[in-house]
Amino acid sequence: MVSPVTHSDVLVAAERLAGWPVRTPLVNSPALDAICGGRVWFKAENLQLTGSFKFRGAMNRLSAIPPEGRRGGVVAYSSGNHAQGVARAAKLLGMPALIVMPSDAPKLKVERTRADGAEVVFYDRLTEARETIAAKLAEARGAIIVPPFADPLIIAGQGTAGLEAVQQLAEKGETADLAMTCCGGGGLSGGFAAGSQLPVVVVEPDGYDDVCRSLAAGHILPVENPGPTRCDALQTLRMAEITFATLTHHGATGVSVSEAEVARAVAFAFRELKLVVEPGGSVTLAALLAGKLDVRGKTVIATLSGGNIDAEVLVSCLQEAGALQATSRR
Amino acid sequence: MVSPVTHSDVLVAAERLAGWPVRTPLVNSPALDAICGGRVWFKAENLQLTGSFKFRGAMNRLSAIPPEGRRGGVVAYSSGNHAQGVARAAKLLGMPALIVMPSDAPKLKVERTRADGAEVVFYDRLTEARETIAAKLAEARGAIIVPPFADPLIIAGQGTAGLEAVQQLAEKGETADLAMTCCGGGGLSGGFAAGSQLPVVVVEPDGYDDVCRSLAAGHILPVENPGPTRCDALQTLRMAEITFATLTHHGATGVSVSEAEVARAVAFAFRELKLVVEPGGSVTLAALLAGKLDVRGKTVIATLSGGNIDAEVLVSCLQEAGALQATSRR
Repeated sequence: MVSPVTHSDVLVAAERLAGWPVRTPLVNSPALDAICGGRVWFKAENLQLTGSFKFRGAMNRLSAIPPEGRRGGVVAYSSGNHAQGVARAAKLLGMPALIVMPSDAPKLKVERTRADGAEVVFYDRLTEARETIAAKLAEARGAIIVPPFADPLIIAGQGTAGLEAVQQLAEKGETADLAMTCCGGGGLSGGFAAGSQLPVVVVEPDGYDDVCRSLAAGHILPVENPGPTRCDALQTLRMAEITFATLTHHGATGVSVSEAEVARAVAFAFRELKLVVEPGGSVTLAALLAGKLDVRGKTVIATLSGGNIDAEVLVSCLQEAGALQATSRR
Repeated sequence: MVSPVTHSDVLVAAERLAGWPVRTPLVNSPALDAICGGRVWFKAENLQLTGSFKFRGAMNRLSAIPPEGRRGGVVAYSSGNHAQGVARAAKLLGMPALIVMPSDAPKLKVERTRADGAEVVFYDRLTEARETIAAKLAEARGAIIVPPFADPLIIAGQGTAGLEAVQQLAEKGETADLAMTCCGGGGLSGGFAAGSQLPVVVVEPDGYDDVCRSLAAGHILPVENPGPTRCDALQTLRMAEITFATLTHHGATGVSVSEAEVARAVAFAFRELKLVVEPGGSVTLAALLAGKLDVRGKTVIATLSGGNIDAEVLVSCLQEAGALQATSRR
């Protein structure tokens, strides 16, 4: 089977994006290496423009719109990180942007999306379909819809993070055995597989493990009615044909992590990595800390995919992980 | 006047340290640039081994001890970051380390110092002199005292951060107009001036601004009985002759920041930079946010010198800065 998104597509995206996204650092933690017995390099996409990798795909997609098609602007639907990526890319390219966000989106993500000049329209996650709302709004404005993951240019753009990570590791004289990616709909994961050419293990929150299940079954399996999760960025119920085909082509597999494991990872990132990582952006770290994957003796590239966490959620993670006592002190 | 620590000293330190400390990234924030009107590159030393720049100086000093002098180990006194730097360097070089810490040192710093195998002895900051305690302990063990800043090898080691930052900026095709450094006793600041060859503006907490005052007066002026500060890493009352002479030679000046300005900086680093920065490590950012220095149209390298902050202190900063409401939510 041919992959819908190839290494060449990622190389083209990297050329198109030259000068735009931040070349985020690779970060190692001796403390984590001691725990998991491997050598782990985190691709710190929480330090990317807009606080997540999503800027890469958004900029790649929007840059491909010819000048004459830009006037109507873009419409996107997103719980927050794709929203910010699209808003920033549109701002930098001088295009209007309208974002459809769930009414329970993290307030930080809403504020930051608006701060980049985008208009925000809310919908109820439980009763309305965001795709339908977005389609209506786009038609009324003559705008182009920028989907969060089911688009080859979006996937190839996200894949530049994988390409870059492998290059950075080569500069250190090292090579990786595998990659681990935070996974919602599979855009970052598919792109990372194509860009890095590494075996990829996707990580999802328990209950939202449609990609894990689909890869294991060999066909797309949606999940239904999962419980609440702190990983707002990874609440996808059904992956797309294009991400399924891309990940299947690259032989990806998956594991999932619990809410408690995610809280521990957010706290570990605070304490040991000195990085602010949102729950959905820390699932790879959560899987490593929980021993969900045997990486002994292996070199791993793992994404920390975003850092847009509300202060209240950070506090709840620190408390749940035992890193913050109920009594506060100066 | 000849500087006690020169650019050559820093070059020698950089060669000695090759392969040891992390080449920490330079981080830019478009949001901050918009606020201050300049272009600011943060040298993110919170991502350094042990969570602060202190590992650089400690490793440079300890590496210079000949093998036959290493058996008795080292003794250091520190509120926490120098403690961790010395403990880690000693561990990597196979030397025993004993650290004299104030009884009110942040618990995270105490835990992390012990985690690197060092023995910790507490003293009362208000009634005992740490230098005296350290001298007695060192004599009893035949150990070498590693002072936090009054030592040319320590200063030169810290200076590698400045050398590295200027090189990293050159790789981006940019040059800086000035540097801003978080300042306690002036070890990092003096080293940064020598290493970067840039005009340096040191930043201290209000009340602990002995370096600011000394540089302005042209002679060392200690401060007395300042109030409490969250900047535990910068509670120096009197700078040393060697740091005074180094900073004076390089024409350094200084500004100071309030506790509220520091809280705002810690919250800004959380929200916009996605970096965990301790109060004392964020004073440069605090000064920029508060407009203490006019950097319009200028390119600035500023240190974020450490990230070892207790979760409780982060929470208090977020609350004081209005970034965290009293009621918590999931």
